[in-house]
Amino acid sequence: MKSKKIIFVVGGVMSGIGKGVAMSIMASLIKNRDYKVGLMKVDPYLNIDAGTMHPIEHGETFVLDDGLECDQDMGNYERFLDQSFNKNDYITSGYIYQSVFNKERALKYDGKCVEAIPHVVNEIQDFFIKSINDSDIDVQFIEIGGTIGDFQNILFYEAIRGMKNKMKFDVFVCAILPFPIPGHLGEMKTKPAQSAVRQLLSFGLTPDFILARAEKELDNKRINKLVNNFGLNKNSIFSVL
Amino acid sequence: MKSKKIIFVVGGVMSGIGKGVAMSIMASLIKNRDYKVGLMKVDPYLNIDAGTMHPIEHGETFVLDDGLECDQDMGNYERFLDQSFNKNDYITSGYIYQSVFNKERALKYDGKCVEAIPHVVNEIQDFFIKSINDSDIDVQFIEIGGTIGDFQNILFYEAIRGMKNKMKFDVFVCAILPFPIPGHLGEMKTKPAQSAVRQLLSFGLTPDFILARAEKELDNKRINKLVNNFGLNKNSIFSVL
Amino acid sequence: MKSKKIIFVVGGVMSGIGKGVAMSIMASLIKNRDYKVGLMKVDPYLNIDAGTMHPIEHGETFVLDDGLECDQDMGNYERFLDQSFNKNDYITSGYIYQSVFNKERALKYDGKCVEAIPHVVNEIQDFFIKSINDSDIDVQFIEIGGTIGDFQNILFYEAIRGMKNKMKFDVFVCAILPFPIPGHLGEMKTKPAQSAVRQLLSFGLTPDFILARAEKELDNKRINKLVNNFGLNKNSIFSVL
Amino acid sequence: MKSKKIIFVVGGVMSGIGKGVAMSIMASLIKNRDYKVGLMKVDPYLNIDAGTMHPIEHGETFVLDDGLECDQDMGNYERFLDQSFNKNDYITSGYIYQSVFNKERALKYDGKCVEAIPHVVNEIQDFFIKSINDSDIDVQFIEIGGTIGDFQNILFYEAIRGMKNKMKFDVFVCAILPFPIPGHLGEMKTKPAQSAVRQLLSFGLTPDFILARAEKELDNKRINKLVNNFGLNKNSIFSVL
Repeated sequence: MKSKKIIFVVGGVMSGIGKGVAMSIMASLIKNRDYKVGLMKVDPYLNIDAGTMHPIEHGETFVLDDGLECDQDMGNYERFLDQSFNKNDYITSGYIYQSVFNKERALKYDGKCVEAIPHVVNEIQDFFIKSINDSDIDVQFIEIGGTIGDFQNILFYEAIRGMKNKMKFDVFVCAILPFPIPGHLGEMKTKPAQSAVRQLLSFGLTPDFILARAEKELDNKRINKLVNNFGLNKNSIFSVL
Repeated sequence: MKSKKIIFVVGGVMSGIGKGVAMSIMASLIKNRDYKVGLMKVDPYLNIDAGTMHPIEHGETFVLDDGLECDQDMGNYERFLDQSFNKNDYITSGYIYQSVFNKERALKYDGKCVEAIPHVVNEIQDFFIKSINDSDIDVQFIEIGGTIGDFQNILFYEAIRGMKNKMKFDVFVCAILPFPIPGHLGEMKTKPAQSAVRQLLSFGLTPDFILARAEKELDNKRINKLVNNFGLNKNSIFSVL
Repeated sequence: MKSKKIIFVVGGVMSGIGKGVAMSIMASLIKNRDYKVGLMKVDPYLNIDAGTMHPIEHGETFVLDDGLECDQDMGNYERFLDQSFNKNDYITSGYIYQSVFNKERALKYDGKCVEAIPHVVNEIQDFFIKSINDSDIDVQFIEIGGTIGDFQNILFYEAIRGMKNKMKFDVFVCAILPFPIPGHLGEMKTKPAQSAVRQLLSFGLTPDFILARAEKELDNKRINKLVNNFGLNKNSIFSVL
Repeated sequence: MKSKKIIFVVGGVMSGIGKGVAMSIMASLIKNRDYKVGLMKVDPYLNIDAGTMHPIEHGETFVLDDGLECDQDMGNYERFLDQSFNKNDYITSGYIYQSVFNKERALKYDGKCVEAIPHVVNEIQDFFIKSINDSDIDVQFIEIGGTIGDFQNILFYEAIRGMKNKMKFDVFVCAILPFPIPGHLGEMKTKPAQSAVRQLLSFGLTPDFILARAEKELDNKRINKLVNNFGLNKNSIFSVL
C-alpha cells in the first residue's frame, strides 16, 4: 500500500498570484492519472468562517454541501475538479483558535497552560491529518492563503515543518512566486522571490517545487541563482507563464 | 493637567527573572511620592483566564474582588501595593482573541476580513487604554509575561509600538535582562541580554530603561557595549543585584 | 548656525526602482532653494571599487575627477546636479572592509578583537561624517544601493540607526517602495512594500518619508494601512508616478 | 571507500560554554576507534590572524608549526589530540574576506560584481573542503566560534547549509547549548536553548546533535519540549554535566 501524499501550496511576495488556479491544475493533472485527489483551503484570517464577510467587499461566500460558508475559492475547486468538498476542507485561523478555546474551557487540556506552540500547531496538524485519514484520497493539496511572511501564517508553517519532520517523504511544499519584469527596465527581477524563499527558510522550510509566475521563462542564470543560494533542485523550478 | 504615563515591563532571555517583583518595587517607589499607580499583568498564553489551570502544576489561582481567576502575581501585587485590582487589570491572549471572535460573530467588524494585525492589536490597545481611562491613576505599570521573542508576545509588542508612536512621551519600555556569570568562568556575559535587546529592536522597540539582573554591578565596559550597540542612555541602565 | 542634514535613500523589494533618479530630483529641488547639496552612493558589493567590473556586463565605469572608478550613477548625479564628486562620495562594502583590514594590520586597533559590530559600523559612520564635515554642504543625500533586507546592507542600516540615535533631528530615512498593479488583477498591492518596511523596522529604523512608485496614486485606504501598521505620518507618504 | 564526515560544532546563547573542550573530547573518542580526525577552528572576528591581538587582553597567541599565529584553542587541540595542526586548520572572517579581496583585485572574478552571497560563502566552503581533501582524515570537526545569532556567523551558517544540501549524509551540526538553573529558582530553564535552536532554524539548519550543558541531566519533560518543537531526535540530545 502506498502512503498518502500532502502537497502544501504557499505563495510569496503578494497575494493574487494564482495559488488557487495553480493548485487546481496540478490536482487535475494528478486526478487524470487515476489518483484520488483532495483540495483544502486555509484562510489565515480570524473570521471563524466566511459567513460574516461583506459580499460587496469580499464577493459572495460559497456554501458547501454541509452548509459551511467559505471563500469562493472552494467553489472554483468544485467546478474545476468536478467534485464536492465539505467542512473538513476549509479552515481559518479563527476556526482553529476557537476550537482550542472550546477545548480549554471544557478542561480538555488537563489543567495545562495552553500555548500557541504547541497547542494551536497541534490543532492545525490534527485538522490536516483528519481530512486525509477520513477519506480515500491519495494526494491532498492544501493551499495556505495569504503570503509567506504574514504573521497569521507563522503557525501554519510551524505545523508544516512538524509534519515534514514526522512524514519526511510524504509532505511537500510548493511555492508560487512572482518574477516581475518592470516595464521601464525590461529585465526580470529575482529579488522578491529570493526574499520569499529566505522567509520560508527562516521557518526551517525549503520549497520542494517552485512555480515561477512570470511573463517569460526563467533563464539559466536566474534558475542557477535560486539553485545555488537555496540548495534547490534545478528540475523542481517550473516557469508558469 | 499632566498626562498619564504607561510603563511596560518586559523580560528577556528566560522567565523567572523577577519582572513582577521589580515592577511592584518600582510602583511602590512612585506610590510613595503620592502618585496613584496601577498594575496590570498580561499572560500571553491562550487560556481565557487562570480558572482552568491545574493548581498542582501552576499554583493556586488568585481570585480578584470581581471574581476573575488569575495568576498569583496579581495577589503579590495586591499585597505589595496594598490595593485591590479587578478584571481590567489582567488579560491573557486567549481573552483578547475570544473578545475579537465574539465581536466577529456579532457582526461588529462590518463584514471586514478580521486580521491579527490590526484587529487583535487594536483590541489589546483598547484594553490597555480603557484600564487607564477608567481610573484616576497617574502611572500604569503593565507586565508582559513570558520572554521577548516568544511568538505569543509579538502582537503585544506590536501594540506597544503603536502606542509609543501615538503617545510618544507617555509610554516607556522597561526591559529586565539577566547578565549571567557562569560559575566555571567567573566572567559576566552580556550576549544573552544583547540578543534580547536586538529581538526587541526587531519589533521597532528600544528599551527606555534596562534593569540588569546580575550577581554584581555591570562595569563600564559592559554598560558601554549596550550604550554603543543600541543607542541606549547610560543613565537608563540600572544594576539590580 | 543651522545643523547639516543627512537624508539616506533606501529601496525595498527589488533593485531598479529609481532610487538614483529620485535622489537626484530631491537634491535638485533643494539646491534650487539655495542650499548646498551633496550626493553619495553606497554600493554594498565587495569590489573595492568599480575598476574590476566588466564593462559589457555592468556598463562603463565612471571616473571621478580624482581618478576613482565608480558606478555610472555617479555620472548621472554629476550631470543632473551639474557639480563634481570625488572619492569621498562613493564607497563599497569592499572598500570599507579593506580600510578596516589595513588598520588592523597596522595595529591601529590597540590589539583588540576587531568585529563587524562595532568596528565596521564605525568605519562606515566615519566615512559618512567625514564627507559632510570636509565640505560646506547643507544637505547630504546618501543612496544605499541594493535592497532592504540584503545581507550586504545590514551593517549600513546599523550605521544609520546609530547616527539617528546620536543626531536625532538631522538624520532622515527616505524609503522608495514599489506598489505593483499586476496586469491580470488591476489591483494595487501593498504587501511587498509592507514587508520592506517591516524589514527596515527589524533594524530599528522607521522611514521618515516614503516615495511610492506606482502607476497611479495611492488611495486613502492603502495610505492608512501604512500609517496604521507602522506609525508613519500621512503627510510623509508621496506617490511618485 | 567510505566518505569523509564533517561535524560542525556551534554554540548558543553565549560564549564560554565549552565548545572547544567538547569538540576535543568527541574527536578523542573517535580517534580512539582508529579513525583519523581533524580539528579546525573558525574565529568569526575580522583580524586576519591572531597576531595583532593584545596578549594581556586575549592571552598569548599560539603559533602553529607553519608559523600561523592563532587562538590558544589550537594549542589545546594539539595537546588534547597529540597531533599538530597547520594554517589549513584555522581561519577568521578577516582572512576569508581578505582572500576574496585579493582575488577581486587580481581580476579572478571575471569582472563580476563580487557579493557576500555567494562569493564569500563559496570561499568559506572551499577552505573547509580543501582542508579535508588535502588530508587523509576520516572525520573533520569544525568549531564555529562565537554564538548562534551573531552577525559575523551568518555567512558560516550559509556555508554549512549549502554543504548540507550538497553532501546530505556526510555533514552534521552539533549544537552546544546551556540550560541554566538560576540559583533563586532552582528550576532548569529551556527558553535560552530554544531561542538558540530557533535562530539556527532561521538559517535553514536543524541541529543533528545537542550537547546540553547543565548542572543536572535534562528530564523527559524538557527533552520532549525540544523534540516536539523542533523535530529533533530524542536520542540525539545528550546531557553534558
